[in-house]
Amino acid sequence: MIRLNCDYLEGAHPNILERLMKTNYDQTIPYGFDEITESAKQKIKKACECENGEVFFLVGGTQTNATMLDFILDKAEGVIAADTGHISVHEAGAVEYCGRKVITIPAVDGKLSPAAVREYMENFYQDATWFHMVCPGGIYISHPSEYGTLYTEQELKELREICDQYDMQLYLDGARIGYALASEGNDVTLPIIAKYCHSFCIGGTKIGALFGEAAVFTNKKQAKHFVTFIKQHGALLAKGRMLGIQFDELFKDDLYLKLGAQANALALKIKKAFLEKGYELYVDSYTNQQFFLVSNGKLKEISEKVIVDDWGPMGDGKHLIRVTASWATTEEMADMLIELL
Amino acid sequence: MIRLNCDYLEGAHPNILERLMKTNYDQTIPYGFDEITESAKQKIKKACECENGEVFFLVGGTQTNATMLDFILDKAEGVIAADTGHISVHEAGAVEYCGRKVITIPAVDGKLSPAAVREYMENFYQDATWFHMVCPGGIYISHPSEYGTLYTEQELKELREICDQYDMQLYLDGARIGYALASEGNDVTLPIIAKYCHSFCIGGTKIGALFGEAAVFTNKKQAKHFVTFIKQHGALLAKGRMLGIQFDELFKDDLYLKLGAQANALALKIKKAFLEKGYELYVDSYTNQQFFLVSNGKLKEISEKVIVDDWGPMGDGKHLIRVTASWATTEEMADMLIELL
Amino acid sequence: MIRLNCDYLEGAHPNILERLMKTNYDQTIPYGFDEITESAKQKIKKACECENGEVFFLVGGTQTNATMLDFILDKAEGVIAADTGHISVHEAGAVEYCGRKVITIPAVDGKLSPAAVREYMENFYQDATWFHMVCPGGIYISHPSEYGTLYTEQELKELREICDQYDMQLYLDGARIGYALASEGNDVTLPIIAKYCHSFCIGGTKIGALFGEAAVFTNKKQAKHFVTFIKQHGALLAKGRMLGIQFDELFKDDLYLKLGAQANALALKIKKAFLEKGYELYVDSYTNQQFFLVSNGKLKEISEKVIVDDWGPMGDGKHLIRVTASWATTEEMADMLIELL
Amino acid sequence: MIRLNCDYLEGAHPNILERLMKTNYDQTIPYGFDEITESAKQKIKKACECENGEVFFLVGGTQTNATMLDFILDKAEGVIAADTGHISVHEAGAVEYCGRKVITIPAVDGKLSPAAVREYMENFYQDATWFHMVCPGGIYISHPSEYGTLYTEQELKELREICDQYDMQLYLDGARIGYALASEGNDVTLPIIAKYCHSFCIGGTKIGALFGEAAVFTNKKQAKHFVTFIKQHGALLAKGRMLGIQFDELFKDDLYLKLGAQANALALKIKKAFLEKGYELYVDSYTNQQFFLVSNGKLKEISEKVIVDDWGPMGDGKHLIRVTASWATTEEMADMLIELL
Repeated sequence: MIRLNCDYLEGAHPNILERLMKTNYDQTIPYGFDEITESAKQKIKKACECENGEVFFLVGGTQTNATMLDFILDKAEGVIAADTGHISVHEAGAVEYCGRKVITIPAVDGKLSPAAVREYMENFYQDATWFHMVCPGGIYISHPSEYGTLYTEQELKELREICDQYDMQLYLDGARIGYALASEGNDVTLPIIAKYCHSFCIGGTKIGALFGEAAVFTNKKQAKHFVTFIKQHGALLAKGRMLGIQFDELFKDDLYLKLGAQANALALKIKKAFLEKGYELYVDSYTNQQFFLVSNGKLKEISEKVIVDDWGPMGDGKHLIRVTASWATTEEMADMLIELL
Repeated sequence: MIRLNCDYLEGAHPNILERLMKTNYDQTIPYGFDEITESAKQKIKKACECENGEVFFLVGGTQTNATMLDFILDKAEGVIAADTGHISVHEAGAVEYCGRKVITIPAVDGKLSPAAVREYMENFYQDATWFHMVCPGGIYISHPSEYGTLYTEQELKELREICDQYDMQLYLDGARIGYALASEGNDVTLPIIAKYCHSFCIGGTKIGALFGEAAVFTNKKQAKHFVTFIKQHGALLAKGRMLGIQFDELFKDDLYLKLGAQANALALKIKKAFLEKGYELYVDSYTNQQFFLVSNGKLKEISEKVIVDDWGPMGDGKHLIRVTASWATTEEMADMLIELL
Repeated sequence: MIRLNCDYLEGAHPNILERLMKTNYDQTIPYGFDEITESAKQKIKKACECENGEVFFLVGGTQTNATMLDFILDKAEGVIAADTGHISVHEAGAVEYCGRKVITIPAVDGKLSPAAVREYMENFYQDATWFHMVCPGGIYISHPSEYGTLYTEQELKELREICDQYDMQLYLDGARIGYALASEGNDVTLPIIAKYCHSFCIGGTKIGALFGEAAVFTNKKQAKHFVTFIKQHGALLAKGRMLGIQFDELFKDDLYLKLGAQANALALKIKKAFLEKGYELYVDSYTNQQFFLVSNGKLKEISEKVIVDDWGPMGDGKHLIRVTASWATTEEMADMLIELL
Repeated sequence: MIRLNCDYLEGAHPNILERLMKTNYDQTIPYGFDEITESAKQKIKKACECENGEVFFLVGGTQTNATMLDFILDKAEGVIAADTGHISVHEAGAVEYCGRKVITIPAVDGKLSPAAVREYMENFYQDATWFHMVCPGGIYISHPSEYGTLYTEQELKELREICDQYDMQLYLDGARIGYALASEGNDVTLPIIAKYCHSFCIGGTKIGALFGEAAVFTNKKQAKHFVTFIKQHGALLAKGRMLGIQFDELFKDDLYLKLGAQANALALKIKKAFLEKGYELYVDSYTNQQFFLVSNGKLKEISEKVIVDDWGPMGDGKHLIRVTASWATTEEMADMLIELL
């Protein structure tokens, strides 16, 4: 029995484990002020072409989103997100726990449409009673989205224009950004993201780290007191170098992109097979997560050998399933699924 | 140059690293529902003789304290702590961030005196305006305390009696509990702690884990919805088995106690040397943290070869220093410091 | 120029002002522990046939909703509300500020359909990842709704059954409940509300008080430490008797119902006139708020003499307007509007 | 039986009641955007010589302190206050509920000493682990203090200098400021307060209003989105003109100062009598609150005719009592107490 239902089932990429072993008895100062962490920060700033920025490492995705959003939003402000956005649905109200409303707008293919956001903002300030409503102070997007889809540079540009017009922050959740950056359907690079977004995160957990997310401010001035804020949110890792080590390895020799590309290739191979066998796509994803409609019977049959993610019945006796390839997925695993179609 | 200023400078105990390597390509379900995590939970429940309890694993100490206290306190309640307590001083207001006041009482040797707590409670409800004040709903103690000192079974018993009388929760922060349990000055075991405390945590970070704290409820009924609550506080680790692995190793063949005993022995050897050389103890600790008063000049001299923790000037040209032995400290390291005295 | 756009434009009913004058130099203990407040509480408990309940007085509607919901919800829980509900839209995120997610369900005529809530709950716990989502711990309904519509006894019964099944709290926002209770379209009394809801509030502000909302717990055991909680939320009025006086007057000789009936009668007279002139109802309300579709031109014409509430363009050159009669609205004011149709 | 234990036992000054009556049927737009409220704001800005400032009206004192402090503090920041400060003790943790730590410093005669604050700040940033502690982002003082004592202009100046040095906010709680301004021991005026404080409040509740506090920002730029923030904190009064009316009356023809002067005179008459009879002052107050040490027996004797505030036993069989004169206290009431000495 193998699993293709999730991209954080295995441990860590061997390079990371080796580095952990090699540095194990080093004595480094805690809380991320060590040299390895500094090296990782520099690599990320370089990759983002963002010398005036600042990078911090946190442990988990929900934690990073909540801490960042609570930090970048101003008084009385909430954040706009797609109704399918991770913060809207699957973060257990972590953003609201920080006192911040998530203002949802219906998603299109898992994404927030710039036009819909613009319309929301125009209506908002035309409403004479706007001061009875949470001020939209930021826009949350995930790249790739929860449905594997990708924002274009043009979309990022438009979202940033809205932010500039209304004094808002553009935040990009890159929990799976490695798979986005390596995708053939992608026209967005880290420097482009750093150009249009005020801040964003680069996920490690889903692409070969034991854990860890890099939070990037594109302007370091914004990050005042952020270490204290991280600690206040329970998100400051004592042995900070563990985060440094992982990102230092992921950003060495483009490992990050290589792992993304390798997983995407397997995901697209699976997608091709599903299409050839006449299965219906739920959404057209070019990243490591693929979404298909399969019959109940077929799902049961597949599940005897390969576990995929069942997202529930969609009518007509069909289920929406998610198939995920990760940095650790092998050609054999993909083929095993394909044979079952 | 070596460091004896902190017990979380190195990586992890080799057993943990080996287990990480061995299980690296296993595919296990995330969020701590895997079998290794279950095994670790069972080991801890057994060690605590607490079959009706429930164990959860979180990542960091401040995170665990804030999440646990916010969970166990009821509406309008705050928590009583020593003014030197970790939550009172060094957690960046994480408890207050959750909306909970930390009600401080002056510490005696780093500990909360049951008599002082009792006096506070008696005065509290005698005050006709008590409803203008935060209700004391819990008592926070750290064992060992931030000054290495230990609560006795009698003290735990008295604190629990106060809790029973006033409908409060007794919570024990065991960030360094391994060193306490292995201390010759200790008369408290995990089952005794589980008997008197409503909940507590067992720290991994400072005793050989890469990270990780075990949160223990002595009555599982209290833990309803706690997984969601952990997630809401940004504290749910995706690859949950990483926590399971670490605690499964620490609680295998009493490794936890052995590491504690080994560090304590070195700390006491250092203490003995300081005393023999005529240095003054700041507090009489029998655990891995030792506190001495040394002259400015001596501190500089020591610091050229061994980094100790400078807690600042204490008058008379003396500084309070903390010397810490950890699971990774060797006899040679201790001797290197002793030679400098 | 007169205003029919809102039911809280004027001051207070003369009985209230007279009582304020008469008691002005009385010296009463603060914070609502005085005899007048006690008298008002008893009157409300009697009106609700709820001897085991407990009543508290707060100042404003948003304040009461946020304080009550934050109090009745348990750890990790949020509240289900109609997407048009006051807490979902017009309370500036006050509920989220308390860390509580408002889980929205599309409204039908401004109301939450029991069937839709049941469906949500069934899906919720069927989802294997439910612990990543905020636990629905309560249901918020407003009676009358923000569109003047009314819940039936049958609907309250069904909502309570859902609550009983899933261990949830049913909370009713009665900011305009006086108008509901006095409505010909209403089959729900205060005792019926107290029977099916765990807690609710009775609004004073919109029906003749200067300010003030009564918060009712139907089981006093639930209200432990609520006074401290009110204070902690900044909602405890120092001169508490001001609230007692107002509710003591409103619940004397059924003044509350009389004011509601009088305003409803004028609102229905206006509704009848609109219908006779061929205007379209936006929703069929039998309480003091009425909703019509009028052309842009007509709206401008009306607005020269009578201010009504413009809820914005609805297509076809029509605007949705709200016309509101209050305890202070006179027959002449209603007629002035009717003449303009 | 009369009461001299509190300054918010009675209703409102007759001018306020008359204005409420006179304007009762006026139809004014809600939420404080009406003309009366505007007039009151202008009067306060003029009295403070603070044309670039902005004034808002809230309902209660705790509410105002918590809302203002939460607003003016930045990310990760808490507020320094005297350990006897109202926010430290008697606001039920309302500031902490907003996620803000109150950092207490021992008071001297109920006041925060500039030297002690400076020492705290110097130590704070010398501590290498300062980022594990809440950043002190503001200073809270109450004028008069909870013990009736007064800050001098020199002290305000020094506190502001500390704020300027460390990028902090100086906030003054003026819940009883009318009594301070009218005190013979006072060298501080509203313009001086507006010069040195970034923001402050002017209390109405304790000096003749039914309720109400004016929150003043000395620079209106700071107040962006404050109305939404007030609403989010449950503190926006629907019938906002009720607040406007009260402050418009209090600031008409110096009524505010006259009421303060009248109460202070009676308080000082009482103080003189206590001193002449050989009673000991607990603190030397020149405002409407006076603090004496009296024997248990005497307290009982007094309490048969005049209720004073018992602040509990102070050793030697003596109790600390507070005697309070208010805007509504008469010469006869003061004399009645004096006769009992």
